[in-house]
Amino acid sequence: MESLITYDCRPKLDNVVFIEGLPGVGNVGKIAADFLAYKLEGQRMASILFSDLPAQVMIDYDNHPYAINVELWYVKDVNGKDIIFLLGENQASTPQGQFELCKLVFEKIIPYDPKVVLTLGGFGLGEIVKDPHVLGAVNEQKLKSRLEKIGVEFRPGEPQGGIIGAAAMFVAFANEYEVDAACLMGETSGFLVDHKSAQKVVEVLCRFLGIEIDTSEMQENIEQIDQINDEVQALADSKPEDLSYYR
Amino acid sequence: MESLITYDCRPKLDNVVFIEGLPGVGNVGKIAADFLAYKLEGQRMASILFSDLPAQVMIDYDNHPYAINVELWYVKDVNGKDIIFLLGENQASTPQGQFELCKLVFEKIIPYDPKVVLTLGGFGLGEIVKDPHVLGAVNEQKLKSRLEKIGVEFRPGEPQGGIIGAAAMFVAFANEYEVDAACLMGETSGFLVDHKSAQKVVEVLCRFLGIEIDTSEMQENIEQIDQINDEVQALADSKPEDLSYYR
Amino acid sequence: MESLITYDCRPKLDNVVFIEGLPGVGNVGKIAADFLAYKLEGQRMASILFSDLPAQVMIDYDNHPYAINVELWYVKDVNGKDIIFLLGENQASTPQGQFELCKLVFEKIIPYDPKVVLTLGGFGLGEIVKDPHVLGAVNEQKLKSRLEKIGVEFRPGEPQGGIIGAAAMFVAFANEYEVDAACLMGETSGFLVDHKSAQKVVEVLCRFLGIEIDTSEMQENIEQIDQINDEVQALADSKPEDLSYYR
Amino acid sequence: MESLITYDCRPKLDNVVFIEGLPGVGNVGKIAADFLAYKLEGQRMASILFSDLPAQVMIDYDNHPYAINVELWYVKDVNGKDIIFLLGENQASTPQGQFELCKLVFEKIIPYDPKVVLTLGGFGLGEIVKDPHVLGAVNEQKLKSRLEKIGVEFRPGEPQGGIIGAAAMFVAFANEYEVDAACLMGETSGFLVDHKSAQKVVEVLCRFLGIEIDTSEMQENIEQIDQINDEVQALADSKPEDLSYYR
Repeated sequence: MESLITYDCRPKLDNVVFIEGLPGVGNVGKIAADFLAYKLEGQRMASILFSDLPAQVMIDYDNHPYAINVELWYVKDVNGKDIIFLLGENQASTPQGQFELCKLVFEKIIPYDPKVVLTLGGFGLGEIVKDPHVLGAVNEQKLKSRLEKIGVEFRPGEPQGGIIGAAAMFVAFANEYEVDAACLMGETSGFLVDHKSAQKVVEVLCRFLGIEIDTSEMQENIEQIDQINDEVQALADSKPEDLSYYR
Repeated sequence: MESLITYDCRPKLDNVVFIEGLPGVGNVGKIAADFLAYKLEGQRMASILFSDLPAQVMIDYDNHPYAINVELWYVKDVNGKDIIFLLGENQASTPQGQFELCKLVFEKIIPYDPKVVLTLGGFGLGEIVKDPHVLGAVNEQKLKSRLEKIGVEFRPGEPQGGIIGAAAMFVAFANEYEVDAACLMGETSGFLVDHKSAQKVVEVLCRFLGIEIDTSEMQENIEQIDQINDEVQALADSKPEDLSYYR
Repeated sequence: MESLITYDCRPKLDNVVFIEGLPGVGNVGKIAADFLAYKLEGQRMASILFSDLPAQVMIDYDNHPYAINVELWYVKDVNGKDIIFLLGENQASTPQGQFELCKLVFEKIIPYDPKVVLTLGGFGLGEIVKDPHVLGAVNEQKLKSRLEKIGVEFRPGEPQGGIIGAAAMFVAFANEYEVDAACLMGETSGFLVDHKSAQKVVEVLCRFLGIEIDTSEMQENIEQIDQINDEVQALADSKPEDLSYYR
Repeated sequence: MESLITYDCRPKLDNVVFIEGLPGVGNVGKIAADFLAYKLEGQRMASILFSDLPAQVMIDYDNHPYAINVELWYVKDVNGKDIIFLLGENQASTPQGQFELCKLVFEKIIPYDPKVVLTLGGFGLGEIVKDPHVLGAVNEQKLKSRLEKIGVEFRPGEPQGGIIGAAAMFVAFANEYEVDAACLMGETSGFLVDHKSAQKVVEVLCRFLGIEIDTSEMQENIEQIDQINDEVQALADSKPEDLSYYR
């Protein structure tokens, strides 16, 4: 497979935290990463076109075509840490592409000597989640203790089906390169784009980084989620058979 | 994926306009590019075999086998500009192949320092189009103004589904290489090979290049399109249910 | 894709004719090439494992496993010409693999400076063929005249659907490298492995090479084909509806 | 396709036996290889991530994510021989991936100058096997005699469908590199993960290596297999029509 990487800039970064937030279950990881990068006023450092993303451009409201790509964004000095985000609208479309795109990105990140890799995702429960927790998987005991202290739950052997896609591959490569890594998964029904679960992931990330950010902009979307969840739950209580599609 | 490029010649070209016209919706882009290259008496400069095109040769009426390939053609001094066309009977068959074939071609074009990349296509409306307009997407404001003046329409966010295939990829690569680029899309029902829409695209291209060419050779095909469109429209007006297949 | 080529020997060859005979319609090309190589007492010069062939070994009656590969065989001084055969039990399984395997082989053949490339195949008619002719497609006028004189038929634009697979790709590459090439196609119903059609192709090849070989060993198989064809034809005449599967 | 190989160590090894035991029919090969490596207290020497394995990590009971990979393990001085095992939870998912992953591994093994390559698998019979035999395919006559003496059966032309996947590819590559190689296949119904058949393969391997190991740890699983087989056989005897799914 082939790629075309274009750098907007090549910032000098120290004490790097790498955060992956591509689309996935409930889009939890993508929403959380996009929101955090936005609130921290991240700057784009690179655009990556890749042959296993759709051969497509989208058109914006100025009639400007933009490719379906993934992008690296960065923020300097977030409480003493520099962050690199991997953001985008798509993951690669085949397992081979997932591997190769993540390897390509990982090899661009390694020269920055990342202290920790955090991959974000949703943990799909297949049922309404009123109060989503954030689950973790982690390749280093100290990091686990640290995450437990800020509210991340660790359930032995969960998720049973493992983790797939970019959230998995960056952890897999971090294992090989002996970089500390965790996957943070917000519980979600998986039925909806879940801003509520994403907010919980954002809160964990803020505690991890030792910062506070205002998540009120997520509130409108969250209330929508709550409302839909309530409606689905009411329906489930009264006519469980009507929900067979979602189960 | 692999390729085999054979050069017929390596012309010295200046002030290059690159025009892509491979098959697609209504074959609008292909017809327009083929016709323009023919009227301008283009010469073939290269043939490109590529592993994601069908593994097939076609047989002509002299029993000569010719491969399914894509080809670069050129025309010198069209009102002060040199043109390179990408022509062919097929696009690559997978998204990965689309990316890699277009990247391969783009990297052959870049050394000619193209001033503008124009990709041609059809904008499928899914209904009879009596008087097709040419829509545009463009990566540079000056180019947009220039195209608007010669009759190209810009509708914010259209096409909503984006642009796919070669017409998209060359614009995507042009973005990365900071080359001015536009996609010109003739409105078409998408039901038929649409010479009428292609004629409108040819007219826009002629105005863009500041030339006049005789499109009367397209007229016979256009009248056929008009006639079929009229018949379909009459049927649609009298028995709309019979058109369900086309909608 | 990847390959592993093992040479048994690297013969010095002159005035080379390259003959491709991999499986295809009615297996006509494979049977003809295998038979000719056998009668001319060909020697294997190379075995080619390729990642787009099945990941499989077959077991012979001595319990020896042998890979599904393609092989180059050679014969020296066949009436002043040296022949290289491409033989095998399979073609590559994807269009991409067809391209890459044929390109790989072609690039091994080119250093031998082949005078002519002959690809063999079946021309499927979809009906019983009592007296199969051999059709040709050819990239050079002199070669066409020469083939016409030895009984090859040239029907303008036929086969209408073109030629696919290895028989096509070697002709396509020969075009690009400006090597004389022809595809010789034995007419066949396409319902059966057709030794009768293959015999006709062998006869054309012998006339082309100016040699005589004894094809009586093919006779038993041919009589079987004749018998089956007669039975199918009798059935077709009496109960045409029973043959719908074959049509 | 791409890979990432991480070495835990680079042991000096002599008189090397390479044993492949990836999952397959009845998981016979995997169980046998895993068990032998465990009893011989093998050490991991390398982990191989490969783009045609699932893009996935699994989570263990310490919440540690581990990639779906294949691994090389080694044991020194097993009765004068050093062993390298290829172990893992998955084979590559496409024929192309099978070829490329096995080639990659084989090229890592070749510098150790292996004296013999043994690939392990199941021979699926599609019916209950009370007393499984171990069948062989072998590329060298002396090795065949040696295996026959320790109880391996050789049935001409069997398995008729050949051998597929990693068990086939390593034998295919060994043929090309002229390394002695055998595939050892435990008879199995193919309905179940078959520890009983695997035990027979382990016994053959021990005789081949001239060692004794205690297989009693396999006994509990074997008794389960026997019990299930008995139940299925009883069902088959009384109500054969109920077993149509398994046949």
